[in-house]
Amino acid sequence: MHYKYTDIKAIVAEILENKKDDGGVKNIYFVGCGGSLGALYPAKTFMERESLTLKSGWVSSNEFVHSTPRDFGKNSIICLACHKGNTPETIAAAKLGKEMGAAVIILTWLEESEIIEFGDYIIHYSFDASPDHLAGDIDYAGEKTMCALQVAVELLNQTEGYSNYDKFQQGAGMITTVIRKARAHVAQRALDFAEEYKNDSVIYTMGSGAGYGAAYMESICIFMEMQWIHSGTIHTGEFFHGPFEVTDANTPFVIQVSEGSTRELDERCLKFLHTYAKRIEVLDAKELGLSVIDPAVVDYFNHSLFNNVYPIYNHALAETRQHPLTTRRYMWKVAY
Amino acid sequence: MHYKYTDIKAIVAEILENKKDDGGVKNIYFVGCGGSLGALYPAKTFMERESLTLKSGWVSSNEFVHSTPRDFGKNSIICLACHKGNTPETIAAAKLGKEMGAAVIILTWLEESEIIEFGDYIIHYSFDASPDHLAGDIDYAGEKTMCALQVAVELLNQTEGYSNYDKFQQGAGMITTVIRKARAHVAQRALDFAEEYKNDSVIYTMGSGAGYGAAYMESICIFMEMQWIHSGTIHTGEFFHGPFEVTDANTPFVIQVSEGSTRELDERCLKFLHTYAKRIEVLDAKELGLSVIDPAVVDYFNHSLFNNVYPIYNHALAETRQHPLTTRRYMWKVAY
Repeated sequence: MHYKYTDIKAIVAEILENKKDDGGVKNIYFVGCGGSLGALYPAKTFMERESLTLKSGWVSSNEFVHSTPRDFGKNSIICLACHKGNTPETIAAAKLGKEMGAAVIILTWLEESEIIEFGDYIIHYSFDASPDHLAGDIDYAGEKTMCALQVAVELLNQTEGYSNYDKFQQGAGMITTVIRKARAHVAQRALDFAEEYKNDSVIYTMGSGAGYGAAYMESICIFMEMQWIHSGTIHTGEFFHGPFEVTDANTPFVIQVSEGSTRELDERCLKFLHTYAKRIEVLDAKELGLSVIDPAVVDYFNHSLFNNVYPIYNHALAETRQHPLTTRRYMWKVAY
Repeated sequence: MHYKYTDIKAIVAEILENKKDDGGVKNIYFVGCGGSLGALYPAKTFMERESLTLKSGWVSSNEFVHSTPRDFGKNSIICLACHKGNTPETIAAAKLGKEMGAAVIILTWLEESEIIEFGDYIIHYSFDASPDHLAGDIDYAGEKTMCALQVAVELLNQTEGYSNYDKFQQGAGMITTVIRKARAHVAQRALDFAEEYKNDSVIYTMGSGAGYGAAYMESICIFMEMQWIHSGTIHTGEFFHGPFEVTDANTPFVIQVSEGSTRELDERCLKFLHTYAKRIEVLDAKELGLSVIDPAVVDYFNHSLFNNVYPIYNHALAETRQHPLTTRRYMWKVAY
């Protein structure tokens, strides 16, 4: 029942074997709340772009429970992320999965928690639990984002087949080194960023492709939740169709320039921002070393890279603003 | 080649007939940019929640073109929205659809435009072209959001069958009356809203379910694009998992309280906002008369209702701020 991320191949094989006589696996849902939902975004993108036959969905836990897809049941896998295993909405989604006969995979950090009894497979992911996630000594290939991706990759490979499977696994083997170098690379610019933006009341994040999830997480979990800075996430494919009209010399944008198929979208926005905005922070996956991963699979690694470079910025911002990342006014403090 | 929304049933039948010997229709993609993408959101939600076998996706045009799903081709329908038929990214997506053998449905307003040559079926939707969309004398059942929904509903009904088909069509027959009454109902509060928020620099929108698309459109097309007010769209299922920490007595939230399965999510946020925020504008679908539509299908009509009530607010806001909704600094003015 308790597993490591290296067990995902066997877990998926077992699920497929168990469901073989019952119609097999026809769909997979990635379900969570907030940062845990954002972390599942690359897996959703992978299924959407790569699968020929399997349906997939990416839904916030409480919406999933209240507006459950009609195809959810014995031919489903539900892959949930729940960091400490105590988020009520995600527990309810796991419970629903059990009741409806789905295979329930729970990605979590703690060994014991409330959610565990509702999971068929509890995968304990790696997590940098050091203050502000600065230690950087973990295996990033075992983080929740990568675990969810591996569930998707294994499911596809063991059903339809995935021609880039080996390249993907090679990429997974390289991501930790890429991330560590990238985190060191941004050390000084993170300090400059914190100094420049310490008094801003609004900061947008921008991204595309599988990496959009990282932009979403930075916006809602860091700027809004942990720094009380107003924010919104802008998809770089959507920027020129509304959002770009807020651009001026004062408004700050943190833009992810991804490596892979959607890079052109990001670069187009960056070019515009260089012309009409003055205050831009660029996270460029190419400059940050992601290009060592094969072009056929690199799209899906942008999220892990960006999501693990942000903590360097976040720590600097929190220090400079004297607003620790642990500060809350409502969470854990009032009933809601 | 040119059709009205009342032809959608026949269009879907023809597509299914044409593709019968070629493997049939296996997936449908809803593709557009900005407001045109937002308008397709209910159709995406419908397919995700109601279909047992058909894959679906909802993707911004340029991402779709650069990162095309592997299953896109002769067994696909691509349903695009493009208001004046001249959005380059959406034209590129339609062209790709033609090249790859998909059935290309284009929802558009004008009779003639660049995109038309790349569509198999051009559906001219109804649109309130009066200044600030105030006239309100159109058939709202023929708007682009409803056209996309009808494509989804017909596709499902003519393949798997959709047990609530008649209820859905009854709802479509009622939506115009509901919207007209609702628009009249908010006349005074829209003026009050404009007065209250005329000097704000940030306004959030909130929503859930199929109606989330309307919250997204209001955020990016009105507040950001047409009023240069900072904004972000918060899913009510996500609010308590990060975003709610920005809540204070000054920050304005426009919250959609939907009718149907996700209402509980919205109500929970509203309760919190009533306690900790002071400046809230509530669009309540129940109060606005949507409950006359059958509970089995009402979810999918929230978007049309909210999206057509907003113009009353938007006009008042633009007037009070002396910032016409047609004002732009980049769109149509500079190259990008």
